[in-house]
Amino acid sequence: MSGAAAYVAELEAAKRFMREHDRFLVLSHVSPDGDAISSTCAIGWMLKQLGKSYVLANADPVPGKFAYLKGADEIRRLADLSAEAPFACVIAVDCADYSRLGDVSHLLAENCAMLNIDHHPTNDRFGTHAWIVPHAAATAEILFDLLESLELKWEQSVAESLYTGLLTDTGGFRYSNTSAKVLRQAAHLLELGCSADELAAHLLEKVTLSQLDLLRKALSTLSFRRNGKIAWIAVSIQDLVDTGASPEDLDGLVNYPRNIEGVEVGILFKQVETDRYKVSFRSGGSADVAKVAQQFGGGGHIRASGATVAGNLEEVAERVLAAAEEALT
Amino acid sequence: MSGAAAYVAELEAAKRFMREHDRFLVLSHVSPDGDAISSTCAIGWMLKQLGKSYVLANADPVPGKFAYLKGADEIRRLADLSAEAPFACVIAVDCADYSRLGDVSHLLAENCAMLNIDHHPTNDRFGTHAWIVPHAAATAEILFDLLESLELKWEQSVAESLYTGLLTDTGGFRYSNTSAKVLRQAAHLLELGCSADELAAHLLEKVTLSQLDLLRKALSTLSFRRNGKIAWIAVSIQDLVDTGASPEDLDGLVNYPRNIEGVEVGILFKQVETDRYKVSFRSGGSADVAKVAQQFGGGGHIRASGATVAGNLEEVAERVLAAAEEALT
Ligand SMILES: [Mn+2]
Ligand SMILES: [Mn+2]
Repeated sequence: MSGAAAYVAELEAAKRFMREHDRFLVLSHVSPDGDAISSTCAIGWMLKQLGKSYVLANADPVPGKFAYLKGADEIRRLADLSAEAPFACVIAVDCADYSRLGDVSHLLAENCAMLNIDHHPTNDRFGTHAWIVPHAAATAEILFDLLESLELKWEQSVAESLYTGLLTDTGGFRYSNTSAKVLRQAAHLLELGCSADELAAHLLEKVTLSQLDLLRKALSTLSFRRNGKIAWIAVSIQDLVDTGASPEDLDGLVNYPRNIEGVEVGILFKQVETDRYKVSFRSGGSADVAKVAQQFGGGGHIRASGATVAGNLEEVAERVLAAAEEALT
Repeated sequence: MSGAAAYVAELEAAKRFMREHDRFLVLSHVSPDGDAISSTCAIGWMLKQLGKSYVLANADPVPGKFAYLKGADEIRRLADLSAEAPFACVIAVDCADYSRLGDVSHLLAENCAMLNIDHHPTNDRFGTHAWIVPHAAATAEILFDLLESLELKWEQSVAESLYTGLLTDTGGFRYSNTSAKVLRQAAHLLELGCSADELAAHLLEKVTLSQLDLLRKALSTLSFRRNGKIAWIAVSIQDLVDTGASPEDLDGLVNYPRNIEGVEVGILFKQVETDRYKVSFRSGGSADVAKVAQQFGGGGHIRASGATVAGNLEEVAERVLAAAEEALT
């Protein structure tokens, strides 16, 4: 079966699954991101249009920044569902493996039917029905096709959900998963009333004061090696305490040294214990930082990798920077 | 004539202009940005396909970050064109008024034919032929339609030029001018081989060390008023000297206070003389900062405005912040 034919077959199977069952439990991964919440809301919206009953849930609370999504306030905690259990039918979205759904087993009926819709290439195809599209930029991209194929009448609210998933999983149409298909879907969603500027401002540009304080502290450590080809910053446990920043606030910090003109390798040293650092590497050019990370028992991709290294900052930096210098040559 | 019919008529007139003339001078505005350079290169590419001869020029040098654009190295300085003058035929792109072309009059023949293609709503329709599309996000958007209508065979290089113009003039598809049409054009350009991630990284995420140093200094002045609803930062002349930053490096700095969660008005005080500050206002919510700027003899839009205020920083801040507090109530 060709890729396109397989896609249509899986799409049709998903539609049958939704039409033939009722009383759905809709789940996504723990620590939900924009695509997870958006996809949960979008499936809920589709089920409502199909006249089905459903419960939306997640192991963790919905992050406040996604509260504007229609349906987000219906997403309940797994821990609060015991009275309604067992569920005989589940749709899991944007979740690469069963364990990432959280503690759900006790909520599910024996022989529970489970449709697994996801775009992570690592998805292990858990569930009774799996529809995995590894080349999709987001689960929202898959759900766009599902909604169209169900011939449901678009509403602005579900358009906003899907735009949110596309925008967050492509880093604002900046990651390499930004395809022509993604931009065409996004164009259609704008025509349905989404606001490109308001969603981008809210989802991509807002920072907390803690994040900004952390950035300020991190930038004060900015240092260079090899004529500015390597740039690094460091964050201590005390910095997190002082700024009130959460571990997620560290995401993206390594891009600051990486994005400096002339820098080929950007490095973030993040203290995790007194004498232990998590080191993140980003390469903007040809230097293979996966190899650097591997030297310290870590791993990753050519342009993004990480490792954990024991020692105080001075020791760790010396060893890591020497290895990074090697990778440049 | 309807809007669509007028658009087609102007498009056809532009095509006639290109087909009926030869030996073109292609110009854009001084201090060229991404859309200006991209549009200059794209017109050059089209003229070449049409078998025409042309000279690409600008009053100012091409910023190094646009050097990757095919044709950018052909863009000459106005000052170097005396030997080839006079030109009987000009295409001006992305330039809102004649004076912004720079010092060109002495290069032009009497009765010089001039086609003015632009998207600035303020364009004064200079030239003998004007094709102004105020709802276009970028001149690149207009040139996309022109290229298609000329039935030229797309090449990746011109696709990269137009993607560059779309990307830079929409702030990476984040400004309110990001339309469905823009995203559909961008989708098509990706299919022609443009790399969304490489262009975004190069054009939107790269910073100079000077810019980062300036950001660091500016963030160290971050202060709040009214329970965090107003946030402001200040940059002194000395900061620019110390960091080696250029005035353009100040662009976007005011977004840092504005983008902090809970902030409704972000303000940047930029010292321009010993006792004189240029004040930039950004509103993320309902506060009308045009009104605030007007109180100090400035102006702008509801969400983005500016004024110049005399006094030392303490005096200026006191008066401006009091006015901003008023605007919140
Ligand atoms: Mn996802
Ligand atoms: Mn422009």
